[in-house]
Amino acid sequence: MNLTEKIISAHLIQGEAKEGNEIALAIDQTLTQDALGMLAYIAFESFGISQVKTQCSVSYLDHNMVYLDHRNPDDHAYLISMGKKYGIRVSRPGNGICHLVHCGRFALPGRTLLGTDSHTPTSGALGMLALGAGGIDVAAAMAGEPFYLKMPRVVGVRLTGSFKPGVGAKDLALAIAGHFTVKGGTGCVLEYTGPALGHLTVPQRMTLANMGAETGATSSIFPSDEQTRIYLKAQGREADFLPLAADPGTEYDQMVEFDLGEVDFMAAKPSQPDRVTPVRELRGIPVNQVYIGSCTNSSYSDLKTAARILRGRTVPDHVSLVVSPGSRQNYQMMLEEGVLSDFVLAGARILECGCGPCVGMGQAVQSGGVSVRTSNRNFKGRCGTTDASVYLAGPAVAAAAAVTGYLCPPDEVISLEELAGIGEPEAYFVDDAMIAQPVGPEGRDQVKVVRGPSIRPIPVGTPQLGEIRARVVKKLGDNVSTDEIAPTGPEYGALRSNVPEAAKTAFIRSDPGFYGRALEYGSSVIVAGENYGQGSSREHAALLPAYLGVRAVIARSFARIHRTNLINFGVLPLVFAEGSGPELAEEGQELVIRKKIGIGETSDAWYTITICSTGKTFEATASLTEREGEIYAAGGLLSFIKGKS
Amino acid sequence: MNLTEKIISAHLIQGEAKEGNEIALAIDQTLTQDALGMLAYIAFESFGISQVKTQCSVSYLDHNMVYLDHRNPDDHAYLISMGKKYGIRVSRPGNGICHLVHCGRFALPGRTLLGTDSHTPTSGALGMLALGAGGIDVAAAMAGEPFYLKMPRVVGVRLTGSFKPGVGAKDLALAIAGHFTVKGGTGCVLEYTGPALGHLTVPQRMTLANMGAETGATSSIFPSDEQTRIYLKAQGREADFLPLAADPGTEYDQMVEFDLGEVDFMAAKPSQPDRVTPVRELRGIPVNQVYIGSCTNSSYSDLKTAARILRGRTVPDHVSLVVSPGSRQNYQMMLEEGVLSDFVLAGARILECGCGPCVGMGQAVQSGGVSVRTSNRNFKGRCGTTDASVYLAGPAVAAAAAVTGYLCPPDEVISLEELAGIGEPEAYFVDDAMIAQPVGPEGRDQVKVVRGPSIRPIPVGTPQLGEIRARVVKKLGDNVSTDEIAPTGPEYGALRSNVPEAAKTAFIRSDPGFYGRALEYGSSVIVAGENYGQGSSREHAALLPAYLGVRAVIARSFARIHRTNLINFGVLPLVFAEGSGPELAEEGQELVIRKKIGIGETSDAWYTITICSTGKTFEATASLTEREGEIYAAGGLLSFIKGKS
Repeated sequence: MNLTEKIISAHLIQGEAKEGNEIALAIDQTLTQDALGMLAYIAFESFGISQVKTQCSVSYLDHNMVYLDHRNPDDHAYLISMGKKYGIRVSRPGNGICHLVHCGRFALPGRTLLGTDSHTPTSGALGMLALGAGGIDVAAAMAGEPFYLKMPRVVGVRLTGSFKPGVGAKDLALAIAGHFTVKGGTGCVLEYTGPALGHLTVPQRMTLANMGAETGATSSIFPSDEQTRIYLKAQGREADFLPLAADPGTEYDQMVEFDLGEVDFMAAKPSQPDRVTPVRELRGIPVNQVYIGSCTNSSYSDLKTAARILRGRTVPDHVSLVVSPGSRQNYQMMLEEGVLSDFVLAGARILECGCGPCVGMGQAVQSGGVSVRTSNRNFKGRCGTTDASVYLAGPAVAAAAAVTGYLCPPDEVISLEELAGIGEPEAYFVDDAMIAQPVGPEGRDQVKVVRGPSIRPIPVGTPQLGEIRARVVKKLGDNVSTDEIAPTGPEYGALRSNVPEAAKTAFIRSDPGFYGRALEYGSSVIVAGENYGQGSSREHAALLPAYLGVRAVIARSFARIHRTNLINFGVLPLVFAEGSGPELAEEGQELVIRKKIGIGETSDAWYTITICSTGKTFEATASLTEREGEIYAAGGLLSFIKGKS
Repeated sequence: MNLTEKIISAHLIQGEAKEGNEIALAIDQTLTQDALGMLAYIAFESFGISQVKTQCSVSYLDHNMVYLDHRNPDDHAYLISMGKKYGIRVSRPGNGICHLVHCGRFALPGRTLLGTDSHTPTSGALGMLALGAGGIDVAAAMAGEPFYLKMPRVVGVRLTGSFKPGVGAKDLALAIAGHFTVKGGTGCVLEYTGPALGHLTVPQRMTLANMGAETGATSSIFPSDEQTRIYLKAQGREADFLPLAADPGTEYDQMVEFDLGEVDFMAAKPSQPDRVTPVRELRGIPVNQVYIGSCTNSSYSDLKTAARILRGRTVPDHVSLVVSPGSRQNYQMMLEEGVLSDFVLAGARILECGCGPCVGMGQAVQSGGVSVRTSNRNFKGRCGTTDASVYLAGPAVAAAAAVTGYLCPPDEVISLEELAGIGEPEAYFVDDAMIAQPVGPEGRDQVKVVRGPSIRPIPVGTPQLGEIRARVVKKLGDNVSTDEIAPTGPEYGALRSNVPEAAKTAFIRSDPGFYGRALEYGSSVIVAGENYGQGSSREHAALLPAYLGVRAVIARSFARIHRTNLINFGVLPLVFAEGSGPELAEEGQELVIRKKIGIGETSDAWYTITICSTGKTFEATASLTEREGEIYAAGGLLSFIKGKS
């Protein structure tokens, strides 16, 4: 067995672990963050359970930290009180980004982790099966329910050779994203193997596992080996080490190979993370902003690499260099070792530890400006400025751009040999004082949940019966991200726990008329191309349209988490049949969607869609599993769970 | 002569320096910040001058640093390019708060400084006459025009004794604000004297001069003495020292005295900075947030005092401690000396250097929450949350509240003797790399001004002739702050350079219907009580109502800067005659305002106001100087200047 199969078989509750089959997995740990976790906890409360049933559940306050008004601090006060009452640890604002803190302090080889964040697979760097999901799914996992998914295809990613000086994990992660494209990993786990792993540190693995999300992969996973032991030891957790690997000679469903020695400095061009090009070919593009940080590139050695390039140099007047250290752990070490000083002296703006600019929480780019970012996504508008161009790159390229004012390979600034010796420390600064602990079982009844005025119940869907008559409210192309459907940023993040208000912001960046149109149509449908709903696991991208009357999305294909989120909120995800596509429909047209075979009778239920004005028809399929069919028919997962209890 | 008179007489261009007379002063230096400077530079451009005519003009990018979208970075790119083109130094984002950087790097004893910020008097700590003003006035000063004001009354503030251990300048500043009240300093310069000055450092003086603004004072000023020399030397600027003081035995118009030894730990209660009470009387009030920073309390010793209290202690789970170091200079020193570590280890969230939460740029308080802040203003809503309670206190009280979770005197946490030795360093970290320098005169023509799409020209008023017929659009009480009229915060700060958009936010926090009502009325008038327009020098508080058709404000009294701003934008500031007041008018009533004697003929032009529906009349005066009368008649200062050229 490969490692993925081993962990799955050890956690299998239901189904046969055969590619494409629906399986149910026991979930050991959950992770939530403040932007996408609110709904999970509001749902969890409605279950009426006295405490979480997982081995470990951690709530991270890392995204919504700008606090424009009372809403985000109200959400944080709610989450802290929920943690105390229900047995959940809460990583307080400033302690760091969920994935970095989780890897450092909680991730365990061989266990399963479900998180309300699409980059949850970052913990796969420690030999964990870590999956992103919508909040209601994570709430169910906290309540002890298994997580349902289609058994993924396991792709072996064999790494050989070693990096040229200065080149790093991000360059490889970009090369891999370019190889797979933003949808090439859909339905797959990327399982890393090969001789190069021997010298690939856990933080480097984290960068790779993190950006696996940008291929659409279900997860990414590394063996738990000597590097894992070294990392856990440096975190004071050597006792948590467990060696784990694929059986020798295991065959994978598919195999790809990368020679690290052939990887050059890479960047993803605007506005998709798979538009990858060697930086040398982009040399000279003027830059207005450089952002160093995020869950992708905030490791000790990432920051040290950037600082080494910046040392003794100054950022030109027209460039804004922003640094947001990913964790308090790294911040404190940078501080003690003078690395933070290198940044400050070069003219960096040091933001607080958290997700920050990566999720559009401030530090938008000037109009038509260019930003080089070490983060993982460059979707249009995500940085806060619709006409800005965002390039994704590693810390060395970002730092070089900051001092020259244009994109260039770092050897234009520094001898790459100077970067070669930078690695991880033998021991990290360990201090969990900023992780709020739950109240003991005897005191939990006394804990009062703090509920600000804009924290509202989740609208519960009604059962879906019979044919759907709906108007096309939106027609879209390929690779529409959840950022486009439900934008990120402080104004939007403040609305996450208030669906009626948040609904007004659906598609607002590209189509401010969407809200009014959806209300006018009452019952509506969205049509789109390939890979609809890629990017963030943000379930508001399903919930807000659902709340506004979107009854179905017909697309060429869906991103995994978003497809599940649609079903969880009672929206039918239909896939265009061969020979049909979004070009068949026009905005404003009325459609009638009729099922040809009852849902639940087959995993490929066929639907006929009639365009009322022309009488023309086309077909689509809803490959719902039996359970998904029941959830859809119940009007969504919340109604489904409530119906069961 | 006292020191104020000496500096005024050395800069007098016009008028007699007799209390209440209009005088014109030569301006040596100007200071602008990004929130209130935009209009100044847009106006300056319209003058058609090739470079600033001051000795030193500095543009600070310190307020609008959240960057929600393209607008603030566009403003910053504009300001940097304007600086390069017109001979203005630009302190880049992250370099620090204008007043701290200006005192450290540019302030000069005996000179005059005009700034687009009501806390510009902070530089009075170095024996400078430093005045806040609206942006158009500062633009005129940059163009070499004098600044017009009424000769202030000079109040001697004699300080004796020495502080008890732990008690600091902020406690005294609050005691002084409590003594004078928020309007008691109107028309005055507070000139500090007395034996206690011998041991009052420049940073302590800065705190006092800074909060003089909270009494409504025109400015505050300290002699330039040995403490000034020590400070300038520590900044590497000993050559800039010039001893200056009032002549021995000078009499002041009024004298107040404070014995430092009698000052205890103080706090201002919500929501006015003069509601001052000893902290011991507030003991036990639970706290949700503590904010340490701002131009009032970000000195080296302020931060060190707070850090000493926090060292080895941890902030409880329900308290958010945010620290925003006021300058890169102090940040770097804190970093080198481990002071920053004390904050991080205690659980503080370290924000970037800048104004931050003080001006509502993030870190709003939770609903109904309590915040203790070391800043200078606690007006309702300024923190971003309308129903929050903000207490103002010094760094020791704030740090004690952060570790206990409630308001208390710091001796509840630490032996005050431990704080006694904390002082300023012999040498500060000096590095002006983050101050962008102008292009040399030969290259300026080539500099292209970067103008983002939302940077719009300032609407120019039309001449004001004859009677005013207008409806009462708003009726208000005493001490209305400019925060209430034109709110602060990232959403609002992004609109500063776009008046038509910004106009929609006038009074929005307390009266969202104001905009619609003003548009409906077309021509309108505001009535109010005492001290209308206190607080920030924000000229949008005059410009936005003016743009919406407000033709006059009738109040019992006005804050100085706001009154000038009203005239500068063609709005008539009328003072209720004895025996009349805002209670005479009702919202919605139509009034006719008729002048009894022509403006310009007397400094106390009388007006008769008739309430159309009842026919009742009352009287008010417009004490415009001849020049003010001409500006008003021209439709505002921009029209006036353009008419002259």
